[in-house]
Amino acid sequence: MKIPSKHIENAVDQIASLPGIGRKTALRLVLNLLNRSQEEVHDFSEAFLTMKSNVKKCISCGNISDLEKCSICQDDKRDQTIICIVEDIRDVIAIEETQSYKGIYHVLNGIISPMDGIGPSDLNIQHLLERIPNSGVKEIIFALSATMEGDTTNFFLYKKLKEFDLEFSSLSRGVSIGSELQYADEVTLSRSIINRQPFEY
Amino acid sequence: MKIPSKHIENAVDQIASLPGIGRKTALRLVLNLLNRSQEEVHDFSEAFLTMKSNVKKCISCGNISDLEKCSICQDDKRDQTIICIVEDIRDVIAIEETQSYKGIYHVLNGIISPMDGIGPSDLNIQHLLERIPNSGVKEIIFALSATMEGDTTNFFLYKKLKEFDLEFSSLSRGVSIGSELQYADEVTLSRSIINRQPFEY
Repeated sequence: MKIPSKHIENAVDQIASLPGIGRKTALRLVLNLLNRSQEEVHDFSEAFLTMKSNVKKCISCGNISDLEKCSICQDDKRDQTIICIVEDIRDVIAIEETQSYKGIYHVLNGIISPMDGIGPSDLNIQHLLERIPNSGVKEIIFALSATMEGDTTNFFLYKKLKEFDLEFSSLSRGVSIGSELQYADEVTLSRSIINRQPFEY
Repeated sequence: MKIPSKHIENAVDQIASLPGIGRKTALRLVLNLLNRSQEEVHDFSEAFLTMKSNVKKCISCGNISDLEKCSICQDDKRDQTIICIVEDIRDVIAIEETQSYKGIYHVLNGIISPMDGIGPSDLNIQHLLERIPNSGVKEIIFALSATMEGDTTNFFLYKKLKEFDLEFSSLSRGVSIGSELQYADEVTLSRSIINRQPFEY
């Protein structure tokens, strides 16, 4: 795709560097920006610089925050004795949306994945081990993806954490609510039979 | 979706203001940017400002250009007697990719669409009427979308241009190459029978 302006070409390259965006889509987005006023384009550009300069990682849990400590860690109403371990801040947002969890989090910022060259030292694990002693934490919830990488990471963390006096749990797995049995994959269906729950009525 | 940082929220809002990008996708893209270095984020932001400040519209055809006149209008090897009228610069790029057209263009920058409040005066039409007299142009190709809006625009332009001594043509319509007959829509199939071509062998 030959674009008749090197400035537009450069903007397209930048947008297309984002994951999941191809050059045709990028061109459509860039032309939308080009039709905006100078001020709007300025606001657009400024948003990313301001974000990069100002967003911090919470010194306690690794969640994103505008302050030293994130709003969840600072909240007195949250149960500081339960830590839910997640891969990414998007998982924090997803769990918060459910309004079903009142404990705190620890964001690993990734998952152990030898295929991608990501080892334990690349993740926010050391700080997890440091924050647990004398913190009053009683339970760890593993909320990583149900993949080989997630299981590997869970096991690695469990080995490191078992010396502390903690309970361990993980998210329940089973057939999605609202979905039909026949479309569930075998492993999920098998797991949902083995881990069947008392009938609620 | 509650995002625990107003700076990230702002960046997400900006990305989600682009057409076809929802807030979940926007968050994924913004977090990708957040994980880049300060310098990379700076380059990302700068690309849009530089583009907005430097990209011009060709004074002759309305195509985007880094100079006063676009590279196509400046090219002596192009046939300056044929003008292909298109809606958008993306159409110029698409036609250029085919390497089948050696004439020049006129970019309307939109299409007459009363539903969206776009009338002839919002488009690059006046300049088209001004560039034709004494230019040596002999043929006009209408290459707008095959929609009601496209047809309306073609008809409007034809009425304005018929006083000049010009030939008019439009893109041929028919069954796509490589696609099966049974999947072509009725109107296209009907048009491709009426406009059947001499068999080439």
